[in-house]
Parts: sequence; structure tokens; C-alpha cells
Amino acid sequence: MPDLANANSNSSLDKDHQPDRRTFLQGAAAAAALTAMPRWAHAYPDDFAAIGAEIEKRHDEAVRRLQTWIRQPSIAAENRGMNEGCEMMQQMLGEAGFSGIKKMPTDGQPGVFATLDAGASKTLGLYFMYDVKQADPAEWSSPPFEAALVDKPGLGKIILGRGAVNQKGPEATFLAALHAIRGSGRKMPVNLAFVAEGEEEIGSPHFPQVVHQPEVMAALKKCVGIFMPQASQGLDGQVTMTLGAKGVIECELTSSGERWGRGPRKDVHSSNKARLDSPAWHLLEALASLVSPDGNDPAIENYTAKARPLSDAEKKMIADAAKRLNEADAKKLLGVERWVHDASWEQALELLISRPTVNIEGLVGGYTGPGGKTILPSKAVAKLDLRLVPDMTAAESLQLLRAHLARKGFGDMEVNMTGGYDPTSTPADSLLIRVESAVYRRSGIDPVLLPRNAGSWPGYVFTGDPLRLPAGHFGLGHGSGAHAPDEYYVIESSNPRVQGMNGAVLSHVEYLYELAQAS
Amino acid sequence: MPDLANANSNSSLDKDHQPDRRTFLQGAAAAAALTAMPRWAHAYPDDFAAIGAEIEKRHDEAVRRLQTWIRQPSIAAENRGMNEGCEMMQQMLGEAGFSGIKKMPTDGQPGVFATLDAGASKTLGLYFMYDVKQADPAEWSSPPFEAALVDKPGLGKIILGRGAVNQKGPEATFLAALHAIRGSGRKMPVNLAFVAEGEEEIGSPHFPQVVHQPEVMAALKKCVGIFMPQASQGLDGQVTMTLGAKGVIECELTSSGERWGRGPRKDVHSSNKARLDSPAWHLLEALASLVSPDGNDPAIENYTAKARPLSDAEKKMIADAAKRLNEADAKKLLGVERWVHDASWEQALELLISRPTVNIEGLVGGYTGPGGKTILPSKAVAKLDLRLVPDMTAAESLQLLRAHLARKGFGDMEVNMTGGYDPTSTPADSLLIRVESAVYRRSGIDPVLLPRNAGSWPGYVFTGDPLRLPAGHFGLGHGSGAHAPDEYYVIESSNPRVQGMNGAVLSHVEYLYELAQAS
Repeated sequence: MPDLANANSNSSLDKDHQPDRRTFLQGAAAAAALTAMPRWAHAYPDDFAAIGAEIEKRHDEAVRRLQTWIRQPSIAAENRGMNEGCEMMQQMLGEAGFSGIKKMPTDGQPGVFATLDAGASKTLGLYFMYDVKQADPAEWSSPPFEAALVDKPGLGKIILGRGAVNQKGPEATFLAALHAIRGSGRKMPVNLAFVAEGEEEIGSPHFPQVVHQPEVMAALKKCVGIFMPQASQGLDGQVTMTLGAKGVIECELTSSGERWGRGPRKDVHSSNKARLDSPAWHLLEALASLVSPDGNDPAIENYTAKARPLSDAEKKMIADAAKRLNEADAKKLLGVERWVHDASWEQALELLISRPTVNIEGLVGGYTGPGGKTILPSKAVAKLDLRLVPDMTAAESLQLLRAHLARKGFGDMEVNMTGGYDPTSTPADSLLIRVESAVYRRSGIDPVLLPRNAGSWPGYVFTGDPLRLPAGHFGLGHGSGAHAPDEYYVIESSNPRVQGMNGAVLSHVEYLYELAQAS
Repeated sequence: MPDLANANSNSSLDKDHQPDRRTFLQGAAAAAALTAMPRWAHAYPDDFAAIGAEIEKRHDEAVRRLQTWIRQPSIAAENRGMNEGCEMMQQMLGEAGFSGIKKMPTDGQPGVFATLDAGASKTLGLYFMYDVKQADPAEWSSPPFEAALVDKPGLGKIILGRGAVNQKGPEATFLAALHAIRGSGRKMPVNLAFVAEGEEEIGSPHFPQVVHQPEVMAALKKCVGIFMPQASQGLDGQVTMTLGAKGVIECELTSSGERWGRGPRKDVHSSNKARLDSPAWHLLEALASLVSPDGNDPAIENYTAKARPLSDAEKKMIADAAKRLNEADAKKLLGVERWVHDASWEQALELLISRPTVNIEGLVGGYTGPGGKTILPSKAVAKLDLRLVPDMTAAESLQLLRAHLARKGFGDMEVNMTGGYDPTSTPADSLLIRVESAVYRRSGIDPVLLPRNAGSWPGYVFTGDPLRLPAGHFGLGHGSGAHAPDEYYVIESSNPRVQGMNGAVLSHVEYLYELAQAS
């Protein structure tokens, strides 16, 4: 799951007033509440008041559930805690009212399938992930699997931990919405079809195996769309909605004397550089051939040929967004002073949304410890990710990378794709997106709309053949630090523009009711 | 200390017969021994027989001493066991007969100074190191600090461990020679002036501080030259003598968003590559500018301008050596199939000896663990070593590297020199070298002579101003794997052409006697 907050949710302050729902819920009687509640809730005044009270009542329970979840590391990249993480999520699904909960074996980590039949006319598809990114405790101010509750100036009470915002926090928030509806004695307004994977953070290599199971396909086909819970608010409360996401290839490029037939097959004394080729230099030359001389523009032959240029409508969407999103905030959040090519803010957003990339995630070669070690390494590795836009595909792009390397004299280089998938797109006028937009607006937020998220998620499994369903993320609330140290999710917000967990739970309740009503 | 065995001691089989001294010493009576002993020993038949017997007697003691030494890790790069390693060596010096043993403080790890006054007319300078390279136990077949004695087919009984050949093994062998001389009731034929450092493996940054102490300078000035014990024999028993060594600069090149003012100051989500510069790509572009497009020839501006071309005499020396050294053996030892530029064997030796290099020791950037992690790293580091030939100097070369980077648009890059020094040269007609050669020849070995070792050692401290002394390595015996896993030193040789430890001890005894006699 991309760190959406870092990618493009650094929005300007919302000019509309936005109620601090938690304060409201805590302080007001049900009758008084009605005057402040979202307009849609006027149709269900009793439900709204009762569910709101139930959210309040179950706040501590919901926080504890999230803490329990974060405290169970489940890192696919390290094959750590995966069984435990899968079991725990299944148990949580049962407690939240799902039935027919099944572990779905794959060639990698298992997925999970479940349904919740409310006898409603509409069915919503849900996509969860139970894995999280790796975490290096040395980089964290609080242990990443402790799920500490911390007061942070400007934010309020936050939960710190790997998975806090990506994605256990928002997922636990959605489950809390189900608990609140059921706990208040109400009936679910829509049916749910749930599908989850445990390999999102390694590029979802086996998720299609889960989705393509006949019973899963049958259940998903009935859905109006697929929905993933998310903490969509920026630091200023603003929400950015995206109509899809880039695709991605994650791969390791390995240069070795063994495969090359030049240079040493094992590390040798560095003095031999004078008479031997170096697999490390070979890797560097191969890498340099993949991008423009400044390292910024992909130079893999034909790589961007199928990249669909932004349409006029998309360009306008971005221009509008650029006016509303705050460049200084975005730069501050990212810790940067300049965009690539010294682009303007609007250009930077266009690049972010429209440009395929070739990024170095990591370099590992030879001696990596303190000081030096006079060796000529026999092997060096670059970890790359390539972001793709429609109509590029992962399979084709990988093939182009391999062909480029072969043509440039680097055919010996091992290219090991560790994960990835195609770009994904969802129509702006789909029910899923219209309802999301409506709930945000009724919550006092005018969402910024962007053609695409620059991060990636395996939405193509839903939006592509054969399902061709709309798919998107939704939810109020705020968090940050996905894939980074000190990942957090706001539990009690001190900023009236940003929802805490209760407000985020309520946003999901509203979404489900809104979806049931919409046509 | 360079891995000389790997660099150029892969010699062809010596056509001369070479006695298996260990077998000889074990099996023969003193009288019988005289017929097989080196010619010089005829002058001292009693000494020779008595010392030979003493070497035999003290074999187990000598092996235990070496094991004790290896079992004490002393790794300057990790500041590990340095005090203990320094103390242990001082104690060993005392036991071997040195006096006035002094720890010499520096701005880094301390050196050691000691003398052994035998009332002789000549004084020999000794250079030791008490530090060893790092070792990753996972790569070793036996723990690197266990000093296991192992039978290895084709070699005999070897000692496995970090420092076995580089340099504790040969150093312990030299100390065993002193024990043997003293233990047999003989007087040392020459005086010794001993100087040691604990930072050889990190480029000897503070060794000049030791040597330039007035009392050390005074003692060294009296020396005929400076000598470092070494296991000089290749797998085939052949010995290659070198008349100096390349200089070296070890440095870290660091690219960071912080210093660059472009790209992120902390790791951010990799989707941002589309709109941000990448410090990792920046590093790669900087590195690519340092070498020719194939990564093989230095391209740092003016870097090689002062590299003195090989003289006709040096070229002839190399051509002669190429005829005697076995290319196939060298390739096998290094695990390579081709030389750089598909050079011939003679060309490869010329390159090895005469070419300055820019080598990548290691690459570390961003995520280096298993699988991938979708980040755009804020920082990336290359560990480099640059080998220098006369008349290049370390200071000037470092300055050229910095100037080159600045000119090419990489002035933001941090260049942290972690160690290094100038090239070193010793005249072929110096007493030190003549005696080495003589002892080898009298041991039945016609040494291959090369103008320079492609590795580096801080000999410039002795051969440069103000001392201008000859300096070189000497010793029979064999080992390999310096700076690599499974470093070893042969204790009991199963190959009649290669000396085990006792034979190596005797070679040092012979050297000291020969030196005393020579003029």
C-alpha cells in the first residue's frame, strides 16, 4: 500500500468548516446531535444517534483491538508472523459479524475470504491486507510492534507502530464500524464480500490466485465495487481522492562474476581491480543505462511507449488540485527543497501522476559494514521499483527491461521480479466514487480529485478483466509514516479539522448507509 | 596488508628441487642434516643443528602461541579487542626476548615499540601489525576466531582463522625463530628494532605518529632496512619478491539529499521518484564519471598524470615473471576466466603492477534487507579504494578526486578518506633485498622478481623521507584468504615444495644469520 499521505495528501487548509465529530459525540445528547449530523442521517435519525453512542461506548475496545493487531508483526518480506497474523484477522472478522471465513491457500502466503449477508439489496466488496512493511526498531522512537499510545503536539493522541496507518489502523476502524452497527442493534445496510491477502507489501504476487477462486469470483461479481478502508485526511483535514493508481514492478538486478563470466566468482583482494573486471562497476553501468544522465528520466528502450498521456480533463483535474493543495506543506512533509527539474508545483503533480519511474530502493554490494574492506566484490545488487501508468503492463515492462539490458551488453544481469502488477483505473462516475465523494462533502470536505495515485495497490485484480469493477479507498482520519519509521494513526485528534478514530469509524458507517441509499 | 598470495604469488612449479624441510628435520640426525642444509649454514654447523632441533621441540608451543593470538580478535575497523590485542602482542614480544617494550599512543589505536640488543654490529628493523580484517562468521567453514587446526587435502595441516596468514601467522613464525635461537642457547646474530601498529587494515592513518617519535626514529635510523614476516610461497612453493607496493586511498563517497539540497532529506515513499531527485542515482552518476564506460579505467581528471610508466627494466622483469608464473593457476586461485580487456598474461601482470585503479569495495544505500521496500532513499554510500603508483601521492590523488567531483557537478558529495598512504619502492640492490634473494636461492627457490606489489602496505613511512630505508617482506611458508573467508596458514605441509611452520621458522633463522654475514 502506498503512503498516500506522503504522495499527495499534503493539502491546503480546507476553507469549509468541518465539525470535530469526536468532541461532538462525547458532549452532546442525541437530540442535540441531530442538528449537527450529516444530512443523509436525517433519514435514519434513530440509527445515527444509537450508532454514534455505540462508537463512543466501544472506543476503548476498538483501540485495544488495533493494539492487539499491531503487536502481532506479520511481515511477508521476512516471512515473520504470517500464520499468526492471518489467524488473528480471521478471528477479528468473526467477531465483527462475518461468516464463512476461509483461509485461501496460494503459492505464497494465504489469503482470506469471508462474507456478511445482511439480506440487503447491495453488496460491497472489501479488500484488506494483513501484512505490514518491515521495520528497523533502531529507527523508531517507540518499538514498532508495541503500539504505544502517545500524545503528539498538533496531532493529539496517536498510536505508534508498524501498520498503524498502513493498513491495520483503517481496517480496524472499519471493523469497529461493523461492531458499532451490530452493537446498537441495527442491521447492516449492505452485504459485504471480503477478500484479503498477506503479501500486499511484497507486490501481491499471489493475490490473483485468491480472487480467481470460483466462490470468490462469484461473490465479488455481485458487488457494486471494491473498497479499502483508508485514513484519507491530510494534516489539515483535507482529503484527496484518486481514480486509480500506478502499477509497479519490484525487482532485484544482480551482477555477478559467476553469471557474467568476467571478474571474480568470489570476492578477491581489491588490488586485482587493475587486471580484473568488476561486477559492481558492471552493475553501475547497467543501472546508468536505465535512466537519463541526471538519473531522472527512464531510458529503458520503449518502456514509456505505451504510457498514455494525460487527457485534457486529467490535466485540468491536476491544475485544479495544484491550486488547492499546498506546495510548501508537501515539501515540508517530504523533507525536500526542490522538485525534479525544478518543476513548478503543478508540473510536479503532473509528473507524480503521469510519469513512469525507475527508482533505486536499495544498493547492496561487497563490503557494507563500518569503514572499508579492500575487496573486489564478486556480486552487487540493486533493488529497483518501476512505477507504471496505463496502458503499460507489468509483464510487458519487465520484458522491456530485460530486452534493454540484453541490447546494451548487460544480458548477463539477473533480473528477479519480486512483485508487482498493472496500473488500475476507476471511472469518476462509478457509484463507489460518487458515494465516497458525497460522504466527504456531507462531512464538510470538498475532496481534491486526482486522476491517479502515484503509489500502487493491486486494484487491477478488481478493475481489470474479468471483474471490471470500480475500486477505491475511503475513510476519514489521519496517519502517516507508511513504509517509514514512527508510522502513526490518530486516535484522538487535537485538530478540529482532522478526525480521530471515532470520527473515522463514523465515516465508514455513513458510507455504508449512503451506499445503501444511493442509485 | 595485501593478500600477496592472491595478487601475484600464483607461480608455476619451481623446476629446482626443494627439500621438504619439516620431514628432513623430523627424520634426520644432525650430522645427516648437514649434507642437506643450506650452504650458508656450513659456517655455523652447530648453530644450525641446535636451532633446527629447538624449532622441532618448540613446534607445539609455537602453534599454541599462534592459536592464542588468532583467538583474540583485534579489528580496528570495528574497534574490537584492540587493547587486548595490543597487550597480547607486547607480552609475546617480552617472551621472545625484546626489552623496552612500549605502547605508543596515537590519535587512533596505539602502536608498539621495542628493541632487542644482541650487541651485534647490524640492526634489522621489524614492522608488525596486531590488527586483522573484519570477518563474517557466516561465510566461514570454521569460526574465524577459533583457530581450528584442519587437515586440508593438497595442503596438509592448516590453521584456519582471521589473521592466520595476514599477519599473525607469519609474525608468530618470526617470534618462534627468536625462541628457537634463544632456546638453543645461541646469541641473536643481529639486533632488532621493532615497531608495530594496530591500524594497518584501516589504512594506517596514525602509523607515522608512531614512527616519528624521536626514540623510534633514532632506533630505526640504525637499521639496515625494515622487514615484515610473510608467508611468501605460493601453492607450488614458488616465491615472488616485490620491490615496493602501490599506495592506496580508502574512502567513502556519500550522496545525501541533505547535503545536495535536492531529493529528500529522509527516506520517502518511492512513488515520489516521479517528482524528486534521487541521491542514489546521483551517487551512481558520480561514480560513473570516475571510470571509463566499461568501469575499468580511471577517468578522474589528472589522476594518472603522475603515474610513472614502467621502465624497460621493469617491463623486462614482468616479461620474465610472466614466463615463470602460471596463468591458469592464477586464474583458478582468483576464480576468474578472463583478464580485463581480455589482456594476455603478460599484459595482465603489467596492468596489475603499473595501473592506478578506482575500485568499488562496497555499495550501501536505502533498503538492503531481503526482498524490496518501496522507498526513495535519502542517502547512498560507495566505499572505494584507489591504488596509486609512483609518483602519485595519496594527498594529491584525494585532492584530484574532490576536484573532479566538483567540476562534474558532484561537489555536494561527501568524500571521507578513511585511510591510505603513498606508494613505496625499495632498490633491488639494497642489502635487505639481496639477502632475501640469497636465502631463497639457497633454499632451492629462484624467486620471481616484480617491480611492485599491487596491494599496499605503509612501507612509505620507512622508504620515504626522512628515513629512506629499504623495506620488504620475507619468509617461506604458505597461506591464503587474507581479507576473505577461510583464511589459512599451513602448519604442516603435505606438499614437499611448500614449507610448513617449522620450515618457515627456519627461513627466518637463516635470514637473520645471512644478514649478519652479508655486506
